[in-house]
Amino acid sequence: MDSQVDLRSIARGTPGFSGADLANLVNEAALFAGRANRAIVTNDDMQEARDKVLMGVERRSVVLSELDRVNCAYHEAGHAVVAALLPKADPLHKVTIIPRGRAMGVTMQLPEADRHTYTKEYLETQVAVLMGGRAAEELFMNHMTSGASNDIERATDIAQHMVCEWGMSELGPLAFRKPGNTYEADRAHTLSEATAQRVDEEIRKVVMTAYDHARTIVERNRNSVESRAQALLDRESLEADEIKALLATAGARA
Amino acid sequence: MDSQVDLRSIARGTPGFSGADLANLVNEAALFAGRANRAIVTNDDMQEARDKVLMGVERRSVVLSELDRVNCAYHEAGHAVVAALLPKADPLHKVTIIPRGRAMGVTMQLPEADRHTYTKEYLETQVAVLMGGRAAEELFMNHMTSGASNDIERATDIAQHMVCEWGMSELGPLAFRKPGNTYEADRAHTLSEATAQRVDEEIRKVVMTAYDHARTIVERNRNSVESRAQALLDRESLEADEIKALLATAGARA
Amino acid sequence: MDSQVDLRSIARGTPGFSGADLANLVNEAALFAGRANRAIVTNDDMQEARDKVLMGVERRSVVLSELDRVNCAYHEAGHAVVAALLPKADPLHKVTIIPRGRAMGVTMQLPEADRHTYTKEYLETQVAVLMGGRAAEELFMNHMTSGASNDIERATDIAQHMVCEWGMSELGPLAFRKPGNTYEADRAHTLSEATAQRVDEEIRKVVMTAYDHARTIVERNRNSVESRAQALLDRESLEADEIKALLATAGARA
Amino acid sequence: MDSQVDLRSIARGTPGFSGADLANLVNEAALFAGRANRAIVTNDDMQEARDKVLMGVERRSVVLSELDRVNCAYHEAGHAVVAALLPKADPLHKVTIIPRGRAMGVTMQLPEADRHTYTKEYLETQVAVLMGGRAAEELFMNHMTSGASNDIERATDIAQHMVCEWGMSELGPLAFRKPGNTYEADRAHTLSEATAQRVDEEIRKVVMTAYDHARTIVERNRNSVESRAQALLDRESLEADEIKALLATAGARA
Amino acid sequence: MDSQVDLRSIARGTPGFSGADLANLVNEAALFAGRANRAIVTNDDMQEARDKVLMGVERRSVVLSELDRVNCAYHEAGHAVVAALLPKADPLHKVTIIPRGRAMGVTMQLPEADRHTYTKEYLETQVAVLMGGRAAEELFMNHMTSGASNDIERATDIAQHMVCEWGMSELGPLAFRKPGNTYEADRAHTLSEATAQRVDEEIRKVVMTAYDHARTIVERNRNSVESRAQALLDRESLEADEIKALLATAGARA
Amino acid sequence: MDSQVDLRSIARGTPGFSGADLANLVNEAALFAGRANRAIVTNDDMQEARDKVLMGVERRSVVLSELDRVNCAYHEAGHAVVAALLPKADPLHKVTIIPRGRAMGVTMQLPEADRHTYTKEYLETQVAVLMGGRAAEELFMNHMTSGASNDIERATDIAQHMVCEWGMSELGPLAFRKPGNTYEADRAHTLSEATAQRVDEEIRKVVMTAYDHARTIVERNRNSVESRAQALLDRESLEADEIKALLATAGARA
Repeated sequence: MDSQVDLRSIARGTPGFSGADLANLVNEAALFAGRANRAIVTNDDMQEARDKVLMGVERRSVVLSELDRVNCAYHEAGHAVVAALLPKADPLHKVTIIPRGRAMGVTMQLPEADRHTYTKEYLETQVAVLMGGRAAEELFMNHMTSGASNDIERATDIAQHMVCEWGMSELGPLAFRKPGNTYEADRAHTLSEATAQRVDEEIRKVVMTAYDHARTIVERNRNSVESRAQALLDRESLEADEIKALLATAGARA
Repeated sequence: MDSQVDLRSIARGTPGFSGADLANLVNEAALFAGRANRAIVTNDDMQEARDKVLMGVERRSVVLSELDRVNCAYHEAGHAVVAALLPKADPLHKVTIIPRGRAMGVTMQLPEADRHTYTKEYLETQVAVLMGGRAAEELFMNHMTSGASNDIERATDIAQHMVCEWGMSELGPLAFRKPGNTYEADRAHTLSEATAQRVDEEIRKVVMTAYDHARTIVERNRNSVESRAQALLDRESLEADEIKALLATAGARA
Repeated sequence: MDSQVDLRSIARGTPGFSGADLANLVNEAALFAGRANRAIVTNDDMQEARDKVLMGVERRSVVLSELDRVNCAYHEAGHAVVAALLPKADPLHKVTIIPRGRAMGVTMQLPEADRHTYTKEYLETQVAVLMGGRAAEELFMNHMTSGASNDIERATDIAQHMVCEWGMSELGPLAFRKPGNTYEADRAHTLSEATAQRVDEEIRKVVMTAYDHARTIVERNRNSVESRAQALLDRESLEADEIKALLATAGARA
Repeated sequence: MDSQVDLRSIARGTPGFSGADLANLVNEAALFAGRANRAIVTNDDMQEARDKVLMGVERRSVVLSELDRVNCAYHEAGHAVVAALLPKADPLHKVTIIPRGRAMGVTMQLPEADRHTYTKEYLETQVAVLMGGRAAEELFMNHMTSGASNDIERATDIAQHMVCEWGMSELGPLAFRKPGNTYEADRAHTLSEATAQRVDEEIRKVVMTAYDHARTIVERNRNSVESRAQALLDRESLEADEIKALLATAGARA
Repeated sequence: MDSQVDLRSIARGTPGFSGADLANLVNEAALFAGRANRAIVTNDDMQEARDKVLMGVERRSVVLSELDRVNCAYHEAGHAVVAALLPKADPLHKVTIIPRGRAMGVTMQLPEADRHTYTKEYLETQVAVLMGGRAAEELFMNHMTSGASNDIERATDIAQHMVCEWGMSELGPLAFRKPGNTYEADRAHTLSEATAQRVDEEIRKVVMTAYDHARTIVERNRNSVESRAQALLDRESLEADEIKALLATAGARA
Repeated sequence: MDSQVDLRSIARGTPGFSGADLANLVNEAALFAGRANRAIVTNDDMQEARDKVLMGVERRSVVLSELDRVNCAYHEAGHAVVAALLPKADPLHKVTIIPRGRAMGVTMQLPEADRHTYTKEYLETQVAVLMGGRAAEELFMNHMTSGASNDIERATDIAQHMVCEWGMSELGPLAFRKPGNTYEADRAHTLSEATAQRVDEEIRKVVMTAYDHARTIVERNRNSVESRAQALLDRESLEADEIKALLATAGARA
């Protein structure tokens, strides 16, 4: 039985938290303390450092138009509500509309423990969470934007792993590709058009089913998404406990 | 939610205005001042420098035949009228038939603020603006020319991004390619002919719909295009306020 | 008549036990003895070294969630029961749920003698053993996980060799590819889509038949898998004789 | 609106007349004057130099069989008559059956001014002119020869630009490829077989229509082609005014 | 009319007996003599050296299971009987089940003279001889093994040459590929799927017909194969005259 | 109108007779004179040198079986009769069954003058001449051999040029490929399967028509082929005048 690399790395091309990452984390925390002229690294420094490492550096210099800002708030609120309501999703850690790295907003989930394997249900949930942003934009803003491009790419990647490597589709427990391997270059030649077509269909099925699921959840929980988006516009970032409180108030359900 | 690079860079392969671009801009302005033996860089120097950086250097040595010049005026007038009349289009900045770089004429739009995301409607508008030149040539000159080649290339690129990366077609929120990535080289192998065919059809639909839209606008506003083309033949360049005045006079509508 | 390289190497890319491997084995045994401050390398040191070389180094630092641990136990129990009951399978050597290398659990078979050729029945058996893990997860845990990814890859590789190089399908005794050979690069061009499609179908047939077989065996021997999984959760590793005893008790049959 | 590079360069891979070309031209003229022991470069030297630069160096050492010579005369006469009679064609400059470079004969057209864009009609005319040689061979010599290979290649190239880059076919204003660009390597993957087939059909339509047009013109002006071919066999080269005179005499019409 | 390189080299990638091979042969013979402390190289040394060069070095250290040994004996007996009974086959030289190189057993044929061309019948015979091993395994051992992998590869290679280079199929005297040639890289692009499919079918027909032929011969001569396999198990190697004697006794017929 | 490189170079990858070839020719003639201890290079030396340069060096050390020798004689006789009887064929220069280079026999034609273009009829004739060898083998030897492999390759190459570059098929005057050109790499992508299939069919039609033609000529002139093959077996080489005499005697007709 095999252990998998961190799912986040599948889409982002970086491995999970390595020793070097930890060293980096402590170093960043020390820098936050230093900038505040404190000799002691506090818990808050560590948390700020963790968020920077996980979500990218804040870029407060980026000026968003009001429309972009509102759109982003609903987009992240969509991710967050789907993540909060689906039972198999990793717990929410933080939602923010402060630009970080190349992202305009971030919805951060943190698993309760290291994951070594992923179940089909967990992966379907993750794809639904990724679709929550686009679904919210459509329902609240009545448009679709290029802001979902990374969500779309990651959702497609997960679906492809499910179908082509993890045997989680109707095509059954067969491998259909293995990247970065010269030996595989040969096998690729025997992937017929007929098979490629079935692979495409199964990948499509995974993503479209998750999208429909996300859309249903966002529609059914309009008030929760609305209140959360407003809270983001007011306060820019929401921590896990604030999110839970908002959901309880709104009577949300998956 | 992701922030996108400047749309202009998608077609032209150059990023938006970087720090180096700004340094370049200031430098060009200083050169304009220097050539005029002025010790102070005026606002006009800055504007001329900006136009040079954005649109390429003027090439007054290029001698156009009268036919090329008239054709170019109608082509740019077509772009300009579509851009001026579509509500989601970036505001017009300048229209000119003075050759610049490898362009014989330029219709320059400048967004009111930095764009971080693009809506589907905005992108459809941009493709329609790009089609306005060809449409005007057909309706006023009764021919089509190779002068639209860059418009065609950029329109196809935008349509491809909409369908393949931004989930803005009936194929839904799936990614169909990711350029310049070895990992992607593998995924390409599972893009079946059946899927490629549907992708081609959706790209075609985006461009053809925008073309029909542009043609309708140009037909419905024959007088506006005509008067603007004449103004270009008279004065070579039109600034934003002159364009607005012309449109108001002509009673144009989208 | 040709002798084949070790089947394990087909999936793992490493040849069988070479002279260097043997030197490594003895060295590892000496290290185990050294760590225990013993001047003499005992039989136990040799066995521990052999397991390390064959199955990877134990990684007791990896902390599995209880769910992962239970899932892994049923997964390995599935492999083990199928291997124990199929008459053509290599004898079981050891089953463990102590993480080793990138594996969370290992079911180790050791052939009674070096194998120089593989019969079709032996290969079909091996694919069924590989499918036993996924089958057990589905029947006992009621889910499927990414933990089967290496099983899936190895099963597909064996099926591909059977169909494309060893003439063991309805396509008959023809070769359909030969990796790592420039001469072959040409031949690939004459592998028509029609042939590639038939190759894909035959590979699929081998894996799906083996999967159905594995599922049937696991279903028919629910008690054996259950008791073996419980033993793994209690004791972490089971040696060959413990496994046999368990099977005899459970009255297992293929 | 874009300016295009010289059409001649599309087929021949060399740009239009650059500064270096001009220097070369003057140099060649000086050499002609030098060879004639004249201290002054005359207008004739300049013209001879221009023809050498545009059409390649004369190779009087090449000995043609009488059959090749006659065939060549009709081939060039075919080009010339089509070029002379189609209203959109660039004016004829010279026709010759003296071998130059790798050509056995040359029909040279010179545009009245630099062309910055090409209309669809102009390009269709050019393809018809290229087809005139083959058409004349078929009608007068009753055979077809490999002498049309460069005509065929250039005609196909122009048709491909019209369909794939300039939006001049029923496929509409879409781009179907962009050579020498790594970014484009990706797009190529989404060019489905269905689209490639339609592209092929449109390219074919352009060339075949032009060929039929050329054949009709040659048939309808048999006498003009005949007399021009005879003049070429007599005098080897015809200047523009001689050609016009011949046509007037023959009462030629497109 | 062209002379071909040695057929053995087609499958094995080594040319026929070169001068260097001869030097090697003499050297090997001298080593055999030297090991036996003989100053003179005998005829036996030369023969042993020849077998080593042609068939690979004996590897008596390889320990085969009894099953592998029996299987190998029937496999080689199958090759030998087909080779002995088909009139166009090269004469048998030696059959052995002593492992040599990566082979577990070898059936060696030696042509009576250098072959410069191959007839279609000779090539069909060679493919049938290659299929004799698999056929015998199936009929006597009631299984199929990976031991036929090199036979399968060589048979497919010969069939491919017959169809793609030597015009020996219903596709007629056309070339369908030429390996290791950049010029050919272009031609490959015009090998349509429809043609590739017909090529695949013809290659398949050659191999399957030869396989059926080999199977019929082995079935019809069960006793000959049986007695020859027993002789191999008793004596490990059979020389040409022993084989002929056995066949005469058994009353074998093709 | 373009001049083509020597047709022989199309198939053989070497250009026609260059200056260096001439120097080589004279040098070879001097060597022949030197070997005969003659101070003066005679006409015979020149002729022997020419044959060596055109046809490869004689390899009298190659020992052919009687069957190979007879087969070769009929093969070359087949080439020669077709070449002698088809009116558009280049005149025969020499026929020989003395091995030269990698050829076992050679039928040498020499055009009466340099060819700068090829007519469709001439090329069809050349393909028929190439097919004459295989046709004779089939009719007289009742078998087909690998000795025709170079004939097959050259015939396919000529047919491909006719269809893909010279517009000599029903596909019309379009180019379908241009080897060794990066620009062309792009165009290849638009060669659809449908077009590739039509190209394959036209190439096939050229070769098969020529093969049927060659077969008919050989059948109709059995006596001529027979007598010429016997003459070759008697005298090994036939000069042009001997061939003509034989044909006259036999009353041959195309």
